[in-house]
Amino acid sequence: MKQKIILTGDRPTGRLHLGHYVGSLKNRVSIQNSGSYDEMFLMIADAQALTDNASCPEKVRNNIMEVALDYLSVGIDPQKVHIFIQSQVPALTELTFYYSNLVTVSRVQRNPTVKNEIKLRNFEANIPVGFFTYPISQTADITAFKANIVPVGEDQLPMIEQAREIVRSFNRTYAEVLVEPEAVLPTTKAALRLPGTDGNAKMSKSLGNCIYLSDTSDEVKKKIMGMYTDPNHIRIEDPGNTSNNPVFLYLEALATDEDFKHYLPEYKNLDELKAHYERGGLGDVKIKKFLFQVVDGILEPIRKRRTYYEERKDEVNEILKQGSFVANKIANQTLHEVKEAMKINYFEDEDWLKSSKSNF
Amino acid sequence: MKQKIILTGDRPTGRLHLGHYVGSLKNRVSIQNSGSYDEMFLMIADAQALTDNASCPEKVRNNIMEVALDYLSVGIDPQKVHIFIQSQVPALTELTFYYSNLVTVSRVQRNPTVKNEIKLRNFEANIPVGFFTYPISQTADITAFKANIVPVGEDQLPMIEQAREIVRSFNRTYAEVLVEPEAVLPTTKAALRLPGTDGNAKMSKSLGNCIYLSDTSDEVKKKIMGMYTDPNHIRIEDPGNTSNNPVFLYLEALATDEDFKHYLPEYKNLDELKAHYERGGLGDVKIKKFLFQVVDGILEPIRKRRTYYEERKDEVNEILKQGSFVANKIANQTLHEVKEAMKINYFEDEDWLKSSKSNF
Repeated sequence: MKQKIILTGDRPTGRLHLGHYVGSLKNRVSIQNSGSYDEMFLMIADAQALTDNASCPEKVRNNIMEVALDYLSVGIDPQKVHIFIQSQVPALTELTFYYSNLVTVSRVQRNPTVKNEIKLRNFEANIPVGFFTYPISQTADITAFKANIVPVGEDQLPMIEQAREIVRSFNRTYAEVLVEPEAVLPTTKAALRLPGTDGNAKMSKSLGNCIYLSDTSDEVKKKIMGMYTDPNHIRIEDPGNTSNNPVFLYLEALATDEDFKHYLPEYKNLDELKAHYERGGLGDVKIKKFLFQVVDGILEPIRKRRTYYEERKDEVNEILKQGSFVANKIANQTLHEVKEAMKINYFEDEDWLKSSKSNF
Repeated sequence: MKQKIILTGDRPTGRLHLGHYVGSLKNRVSIQNSGSYDEMFLMIADAQALTDNASCPEKVRNNIMEVALDYLSVGIDPQKVHIFIQSQVPALTELTFYYSNLVTVSRVQRNPTVKNEIKLRNFEANIPVGFFTYPISQTADITAFKANIVPVGEDQLPMIEQAREIVRSFNRTYAEVLVEPEAVLPTTKAALRLPGTDGNAKMSKSLGNCIYLSDTSDEVKKKIMGMYTDPNHIRIEDPGNTSNNPVFLYLEALATDEDFKHYLPEYKNLDELKAHYERGGLGDVKIKKFLFQVVDGILEPIRKRRTYYEERKDEVNEILKQGSFVANKIANQTLHEVKEAMKINYFEDEDWLKSSKSNF
């Protein structure tokens, strides 16, 4: 039976927030706890973050520990998941180097994810080469661990398609060494992108509209009570709009029927709450208070674990070291197979001298 | 006083020929024997050759030994020069990876050497990424050894300029770690490009117009006696053209006054021979015979050394291993400094935990 090997990760350019929790972290923890996999690798992608942050390595450097703390806080268990730092696994750059020969410049240029990311960053003519070629580096990350399951958002599908192409090209050109990864899309609920607290489509550090996993209870309360809702819902009795309303989008992603039982027993579920809001007579403050209770209920155990690990940074460092050690071991093994397939392992290959003898 | 560190090398895509001898090998041996340097590295650039030969790794693989034999045959002394195989020095790919963040795609696109090489290979839209980005990889090769002297042909000057830019950008962004290389152009005589024996501008394996350093005396004789000369010089008494005449271009590059004394004492030097040919009355066969004597006089000691090493491939293998060992040692040291400057050496850096503590 085929092994199930999962690779996933984050760029350490900021602390992780509620959007990450809904979009990926929660799902990772539930996969971890299901035990329905053979190996799971969680990569802190500092080298990738440097491709468009070359001039501020401090930012990347400082956020590695933040992201590691976020992982451990949400319940990632280093006994079950290998958490590692990308730059500490040199084999990844060597794989990137050799895969670069199997992809054309125009193929990368056509990659919709690359196009979009370039636009997002206003790079235009000034795209760093490292950023431009990151689909290749991502292929190295995936294939180094022979990961066949890569949980991604829909916007990342072209990246996985490109990785599959590189794998096929490598296996066809040299030998059947690499494993074709499959993208796994999030469930409907997880696919909901949490907007910023200001109603902006995305949570973004620079907009200051994020609820961080590491925020205190007071910070979270302040942020939620100040959230953008339906601007036309002025008096309580006005009918309100729930569909573009961040407060309701958060509830959609986070509130369970259980939460209603606990904190807002007048409503059985979100549908009832929505119906009331839509027909008028329900104030924002009441819903925001409920949302705060829901969010704080999620964040409280996360915060506790964070405090535990914040006081034990050396332990976190050891976890990262150990994860990187394992990652190196496996990536080096794959690199070994890759070089063997390419027959560029001259000094280890007894046939080398023989074959070059026969050449005369 | 500044150390003089030299890096030079060849792509192992074929045996080396008389063009290589005139253009670079002869000069390398004379530098080596002058002793006017601190370290000299001679790189067999298999990884670079793979960027446009990904689908025929065998060709590259088989030619590594050929090129090594060519080096030793012309008199490169492994006691004085580190001969190494590029792919056996993984630090080079790691440096390439990080330097890629400091160069824009459009900058590489504007590189005249890259433009020209793409045209030469008829790549157009299908340029492999690895080939497209080879100026970056070449910068890694040069800087890994802190080479400040890079002997190149004029066509390679834009590459060295790009390397210098990357070095300045790295040093400015992180810390003063890398050394700016200087291109050293060949002397006038060495700059003469030997045309093919068929009059084609370049010696090229695919055109079958090369005189290889490993050719036997008979092969060389046959090739020289069949060389293209002035097509309008039909009868001996006709005046001949010497300026686009490969036989004379070879003599220009190779024949010494000493050679005239030995083999063709009727003429004091090449000027006299040319004058006679130009006014008419001098047959091609006579000049070709002279050229053969000159070339064979150069190739004979090369052939002898080649026979010696061909019978001792294990020794050659050891030389390459030892050279690669030294190259690894030095490249790893540079990589260490590079990662330290970028502050991505987390596990070795005691400040890492401290600085990430202060971040809260």
